[in-house]
Amino acid sequence: MTEKRFHKIQQVVSRRQKYLTIVLENIHDPHNVSAILRSADAVGIGKVYLIYNTCKFPKVGRVSSASANKWIELVRFKNVRDCFNELRKKKFNIYSTYISESKKNYSLFELNLTGKIAFVFGNEHEGVSDDVKRLADRNFLVPMYGMVQSLNVSVTVAVCLYETLRQREIKGKYDKSEFGKKELKEKLNYYLKK
Amino acid sequence: MTEKRFHKIQQVVSRRQKYLTIVLENIHDPHNVSAILRSADAVGIGKVYLIYNTCKFPKVGRVSSASANKWIELVRFKNVRDCFNELRKKKFNIYSTYISESKKNYSLFELNLTGKIAFVFGNEHEGVSDDVKRLADRNFLVPMYGMVQSLNVSVTVAVCLYETLRQREIKGKYDKSEFGKKELKEKLNYYLKK
Repeated sequence: MTEKRFHKIQQVVSRRQKYLTIVLENIHDPHNVSAILRSADAVGIGKVYLIYNTCKFPKVGRVSSASANKWIELVRFKNVRDCFNELRKKKFNIYSTYISESKKNYSLFELNLTGKIAFVFGNEHEGVSDDVKRLADRNFLVPMYGMVQSLNVSVTVAVCLYETLRQREIKGKYDKSEFGKKELKEKLNYYLKK
Repeated sequence: MTEKRFHKIQQVVSRRQKYLTIVLENIHDPHNVSAILRSADAVGIGKVYLIYNTCKFPKVGRVSSASANKWIELVRFKNVRDCFNELRKKKFNIYSTYISESKKNYSLFELNLTGKIAFVFGNEHEGVSDDVKRLADRNFLVPMYGMVQSLNVSVTVAVCLYETLRQREIKGKYDKSEFGKKELKEKLNYYLKK
């Protein structure tokens, strides 16, 4: 390993966001999942939660030459309740994007995204499940001013994650790690072995 | 046509951004182009410029059920110079995303995107051409803190356009049209015939 590569990995580890993650619920298109993992890696997400109970998690290895999946830990759950319990244990606020008829629909750009945030994104056709709608802490929308009613899911994910990055940059969240020294060392070793 | 549909079209037309556009240079994957057109429509772009001289503009009709291409005017150019001349006539500032070795690489989030902006995005593998690099007014980067070196191009476009939307919302650019009354009426008629 070159010194340059070691330095790169060290820097990436120090910028991983302890309190930012995404949950993918039955997103099935490998192009979408591949693009989403690349975006997640880019904003400093090291762990992604998967809930796949109506379709299979796609094979992404062959789609993207960028292979972000190598650098992201995937954690699988069979249902929404178990996944959300795990997230709540870690004090995450769970935000999901859908139109609610009873609750206030926040705009993405109204949200404070500098805290402990887990975003949930649903299947290309169905959106998030009723369980997610019932159990998430907050629903929000990405504003749209055109004729088309929806964005590509990998686009929605990226827009949410980059608004989060923008807010976190201002707060200096990429300058100082929220992981402890021991955790950082473990992560570094894990990445160096990849 | 229902009253609801008429109202929707009227609203979309009034929110179209006279001074925001994108240029696609040889982006060849139909999934990408389809996702890009949906994002463009969503942020109020009514006209997209195309420079396709090393590959063909893909057929997007069958990819996306959302068919944003119906609502966006596509203007074709054979080379960068002609396209940029046209944009400059209309007073657009031309911003392109690539890493410059000689000029300052701005971050997307440093840019003021409330003026007359044309973003140029390049081919999936090659990025933007040397002509674009030479002739664009400014180069900038979408910040990335991960292992992977690049984002999917449709993701990059969406992140740029939604930062633009965010800034323009604050400035009230979706509340009051920059098109004149006559232009708005022509646009409305054009959309109603679709």
